[in-house]
Amino acid sequence: MTAAPLTNLSRLCIHTITTKPWNIEEAAEKYSAAGVKGITVWRDTLSGRDIRKTGDLLRRNGLSVVSLCRGGFFPHHEHSGRKAAIDDNRRAIEEAFLLGTNLIVMVCGADPVQSLDDSRQQIYDGIMAILPDAEAAGVKLAIEPLHPMFADTRSAINTIAQANELAEKINSPFVGVAVDVYHLWWDPHLQEGIKRCGEQNNLLAFHVCDWKSPTIDLLNDRGLMGEGCIPLKKIRSWVEATGFGGFIEVEIFSNIYWREDQDEFLEKITAAYLKNV
Amino acid sequence: MTAAPLTNLSRLCIHTITTKPWNIEEAAEKYSAAGVKGITVWRDTLSGRDIRKTGDLLRRNGLSVVSLCRGGFFPHHEHSGRKAAIDDNRRAIEEAFLLGTNLIVMVCGADPVQSLDDSRQQIYDGIMAILPDAEAAGVKLAIEPLHPMFADTRSAINTIAQANELAEKINSPFVGVAVDVYHLWWDPHLQEGIKRCGEQNNLLAFHVCDWKSPTIDLLNDRGLMGEGCIPLKKIRSWVEATGFGGFIEVEIFSNIYWREDQDEFLEKITAAYLKNV
Repeated sequence: MTAAPLTNLSRLCIHTITTKPWNIEEAAEKYSAAGVKGITVWRDTLSGRDIRKTGDLLRRNGLSVVSLCRGGFFPHHEHSGRKAAIDDNRRAIEEAFLLGTNLIVMVCGADPVQSLDDSRQQIYDGIMAILPDAEAAGVKLAIEPLHPMFADTRSAINTIAQANELAEKINSPFVGVAVDVYHLWWDPHLQEGIKRCGEQNNLLAFHVCDWKSPTIDLLNDRGLMGEGCIPLKKIRSWVEATGFGGFIEVEIFSNIYWREDQDEFLEKITAAYLKNV
Repeated sequence: MTAAPLTNLSRLCIHTITTKPWNIEEAAEKYSAAGVKGITVWRDTLSGRDIRKTGDLLRRNGLSVVSLCRGGFFPHHEHSGRKAAIDDNRRAIEEAFLLGTNLIVMVCGADPVQSLDDSRQQIYDGIMAILPDAEAAGVKLAIEPLHPMFADTRSAINTIAQANELAEKINSPFVGVAVDVYHLWWDPHLQEGIKRCGEQNNLLAFHVCDWKSPTIDLLNDRGLMGEGCIPLKKIRSWVEATGFGGFIEVEIFSNIYWREDQDEFLEKITAAYLKNV
């Protein structure tokens, strides 16, 4: 099974972290000029900005503000740490509201000094604590399962099955799942997990990049679509079989690409999107 | 649930790769002097040796030869590559027989230019091809599920559920599973996977080390037991609840520890084994 080819950039969204050397104003201008139609904003790019005006600037550049990245990081072995995380997530909801996006990506977090079970409970508790704020602001929360190599400090939610179960337990139209191929491609149960996610109306976001062989850094060596081993067209076909027709978000952390000329990198992204996703 | 404390070294086995700077003769002498009772031999250490005599040497040092590491790496997109892998696995069985161990650890392999499904089929085919040789030599094959971060090139078998299913499909007393905490600790279904593995009489080996935060290298930054976030005592209790009373094998790949004085490192291993496993 393979998805129909992508013939234009109407569904292409880029995460600001992908072109980290650019500030958000540069990213907006460059993405727009390249024909990109969506942007996912990382919170660091909003530092020192009037967030509402920045949202307007993005829209004036023809960009949909697909999501704000990122909330989460709920687990902490001390109450004060969990309280601080909840406060920070409330700020993220406020930022999303001001920016004019209706989605926050949740990197759920994990604390290596406690059990994964404890971290998972604290993730549930944290999302429940901020859910009324999210509903009031009209902002959805997308639980993003992270690759198991991040289970120590970044997320105790490591498979789509876990994310599905958590979203279904919370059972709110304001909580769903973000599917990122980098984190999930290896899972023998990915197809059924995506199907179930769609059936429960929980598939809120779809992120792409690639897994390079070799990968030389756990965090910042993601590949451009097509230069790795992830079956992107196959996974997109599974996502679209659920009825998902939203943005396809390019999220690449790469020390190698961040050192490159970002204009050239952006050209590679749009070409790789059309050819390999 | 926590296992009973380990009060002596009678179940401690060390993989030769753990003290990579030592050749096998040095490892045998040093492990023996430290009170270690088992050794798992990596094949590279046998280069240029009479394998039968090396096995005798290990036993004269009071060491049980717990297993030979490693067979596997079956998948290849070309027939010639798969044929070469099967030939190499037959040599591994011969080496295990000569060395006098009845177990080979299988790192199953993966080829990033083909699908994981294809790699998984080729792993099954490869094991089936060598199974008669293993039976004839009285050597068991332990399928070791590897962490999903190795799904591109090292193993398309990434969870204990997959390893269990593969072993049960093959359904031979000569094929089972190796449980390595480093690869499996993050899995929310690990406890049930270990239980099922034991119920099917498939639990053949138990490997320990730790997951450091941060981990700075995908392959060679494993931690000494106790310096990471893996719940070793809890996982050992799950393993022993199946009736497993075999060796507990310390397998640490670490550029950091390999640079240290290996005598001091060995002291740290025995102390960490008694305190943290």
